[in-house]
Amino acid sequence: MKKNCIVAQSGGPTSAINASLCGVITGSLENENFETCYGALNGITGVISSNYINLTEMAAIPGFLDKLYVTPAMFLGSCRYKLPADFTDEVYSKIFDELHKLNIGAFFYIGGNDSMDTISKLSGYAKLHDEKINFVGIPKTIDNDLCETDHTPGFGSAAKYIAATVREITYDTFIYPVKSVTIIEIMGRDAGWLTAASALARRNPGDAPHFIYLPEKPFNIVSFLDNIRNELTRRNNVIVTVSEGIRDVEGRYICEYTPAELSEYISTGFNSAKEKNHNTADIFGNTHLSGVGKVLETLVKEELKIKTRSIEINVLQRCAAHMASATDLAESKKQGAYGIKLATENKSGVMVTLKRVSNAPYETKCDYAEISKIANEAKSVPNSWITPDGHDITQELKDYILPLIQGEVSITYHNGLPEFC
Amino acid sequence: MKKNCIVAQSGGPTSAINASLCGVITGSLENENFETCYGALNGITGVISSNYINLTEMAAIPGFLDKLYVTPAMFLGSCRYKLPADFTDEVYSKIFDELHKLNIGAFFYIGGNDSMDTISKLSGYAKLHDEKINFVGIPKTIDNDLCETDHTPGFGSAAKYIAATVREITYDTFIYPVKSVTIIEIMGRDAGWLTAASALARRNPGDAPHFIYLPEKPFNIVSFLDNIRNELTRRNNVIVTVSEGIRDVEGRYICEYTPAELSEYISTGFNSAKEKNHNTADIFGNTHLSGVGKVLETLVKEELKIKTRSIEINVLQRCAAHMASATDLAESKKQGAYGIKLATENKSGVMVTLKRVSNAPYETKCDYAEISKIANEAKSVPNSWITPDGHDITQELKDYILPLIQGEVSITYHNGLPEFC
Repeated sequence: MKKNCIVAQSGGPTSAINASLCGVITGSLENENFETCYGALNGITGVISSNYINLTEMAAIPGFLDKLYVTPAMFLGSCRYKLPADFTDEVYSKIFDELHKLNIGAFFYIGGNDSMDTISKLSGYAKLHDEKINFVGIPKTIDNDLCETDHTPGFGSAAKYIAATVREITYDTFIYPVKSVTIIEIMGRDAGWLTAASALARRNPGDAPHFIYLPEKPFNIVSFLDNIRNELTRRNNVIVTVSEGIRDVEGRYICEYTPAELSEYISTGFNSAKEKNHNTADIFGNTHLSGVGKVLETLVKEELKIKTRSIEINVLQRCAAHMASATDLAESKKQGAYGIKLATENKSGVMVTLKRVSNAPYETKCDYAEISKIANEAKSVPNSWITPDGHDITQELKDYILPLIQGEVSITYHNGLPEFC
Repeated sequence: MKKNCIVAQSGGPTSAINASLCGVITGSLENENFETCYGALNGITGVISSNYINLTEMAAIPGFLDKLYVTPAMFLGSCRYKLPADFTDEVYSKIFDELHKLNIGAFFYIGGNDSMDTISKLSGYAKLHDEKINFVGIPKTIDNDLCETDHTPGFGSAAKYIAATVREITYDTFIYPVKSVTIIEIMGRDAGWLTAASALARRNPGDAPHFIYLPEKPFNIVSFLDNIRNELTRRNNVIVTVSEGIRDVEGRYICEYTPAELSEYISTGFNSAKEKNHNTADIFGNTHLSGVGKVLETLVKEELKIKTRSIEINVLQRCAAHMASATDLAESKKQGAYGIKLATENKSGVMVTLKRVSNAPYETKCDYAEISKIANEAKSVPNSWITPDGHDITQELKDYILPLIQGEVSITYHNGLPEFC
């Protein structure tokens, strides 16, 4: 008797995660081992609460898969749910009861590190209890921080949006013949891949961004200010891109500096204000931390007495489907379909990976890796891909990202706006 | 003997102002009255400082005009310079000396209210001194607040970007099955046209944005919170769009509320905190005003104890040329070319305007108005286009904006990114 399969999505949204879902659905339709492909709503919690839809039926609706392919965020919804480490917890029997009820032969989880932890635990439980269900992870994260794979679905689209937006902001900045500093804050708490992508906005040497700060290198406020000061002697408009997660040498997030601390830090000649305890919390309990962009904007304004603006690209970098990378969506779909293949080969406790066969011409192929090497691990930008001065990236890193942003996606516009699922 | 003409740009950047410049250049090329079209750099200051380029020559470069048409910001650069009211000021003789030297018969200024003040003064001076130079204003502003014209070049593209982005943010917001509030801050200090455009993101009744607050109506913190509280009983994710310039009933900007004042305002049961003087300025002299989005985020978090995020669309709404409205760019170019026509008809001290001939099918024609009716005036959203409850716009206003965002612009991508001039 044929089995069914079930797919779910988890973690934060991207422009490409629904393309991966398309890959799973079309892969299952084309595979003789599976009858019906179900979609659990809101990740693994959809299985726990018997909340799912029939994707095989939906795929028969004309145009559904084409529209799903370019729809941002998560068609099936997300969750932030960590399975307990204890396999005797009743949630496991609940999950497997549901999977039996649906006659499931394979479970696919599209997500990042945390989602791979779920795959790791469910496949571990299945092995222990001799359950004949395969658990396969399909990667997804704009952060590009998953190990064992060349790059992650969603990253290329976010990188393309960031590079294009930084280029457009550059045009916006250059119109006045007055000196100015623009600080663009980009996502990435621990890994600087997205901020690195801003380098692609340049066409010629000297183009913006003039400084790029990743969280992989300790951020030094004094040399940051020196760099900007020097650059302003060469040009009117200095543009800086920073990861939200940059930290000082003691490991403290720059965005955690309160205005009062920053003031003191400056007035005492940049001796660390870390030991000082300024309680600036109001009755809300808020300590009024701004994003790192706002903190640096305040700093530059005060120290350099110059027109300064900070721009937080915010969630737009992960949901701007109208600027998705065609390469990214195609690879996302390919990896979704490859998950089906792995499951039919009885692979479990694995994640689909991508290997770069060659960079020019750009070519990748799908493979897989043991989930234990991926779950709860993170891949940073290697030190060798950051310039020795700590405020730019190397040509190698640019060459690595460039193929991933290639190609534009054809979006259907209705009444002047993109149409999504 | 043929005369030459000169064009300059001023004010803030838009995605359409270079399309207007294209219109002036092509209009001058096709017009037998003009020999050469010059471009003054950085607005009127380019004339004062003899800083200009030959646009007729540049237009001969293959592909130049096509690329200029879709390039955001300002090709000629901008300035913030107000001519003195006193015509005996030496700057006037300096300007007219320059214009004589270049054998100028017509001067075109592409910009907003302030730029029209320059046209008003220069045409006034010319009339007084019997100078045979015509001064014509070409409108431009994303704010859509110029009087005497149906709408302004740049507004349609910004409106399209805002509506598309709000729709994409909506997708990003809905993935978790938890209650949340998202506040999207949109440009518009005094006029709510741009924020009104967010209504176009909806496809069905009940779609986001659920509340739209324009600066034309006093903002009431208590009813704002009540509205959100009620809406959260109906749906999980409430999305609000607000103009940066919303003010309380006493005319004070909401973004000027300091955290301490907001705390007190709340703790005293929303009696106005206006009379209180909380000096929260640090040694920078900053009073730590956040944008209105951040202020409302803090307020909602504290009062409703709910996941809240604010997003400032920032300069992207005026420079995202990759999402420009084809209708907007075409009309911008048309108005640029019409300026040439007006000048050859010896019109001076006027601005090109647009009349809406019909809405369905959408059709406009160019006309002109006396500059005195436009310079330093501003057009607000009429009260009748805001719903009586004060937190949404009427169908009439949607019908007014919808034609302006129609059509997508064909941008050349190179290496995965838009190519501009």
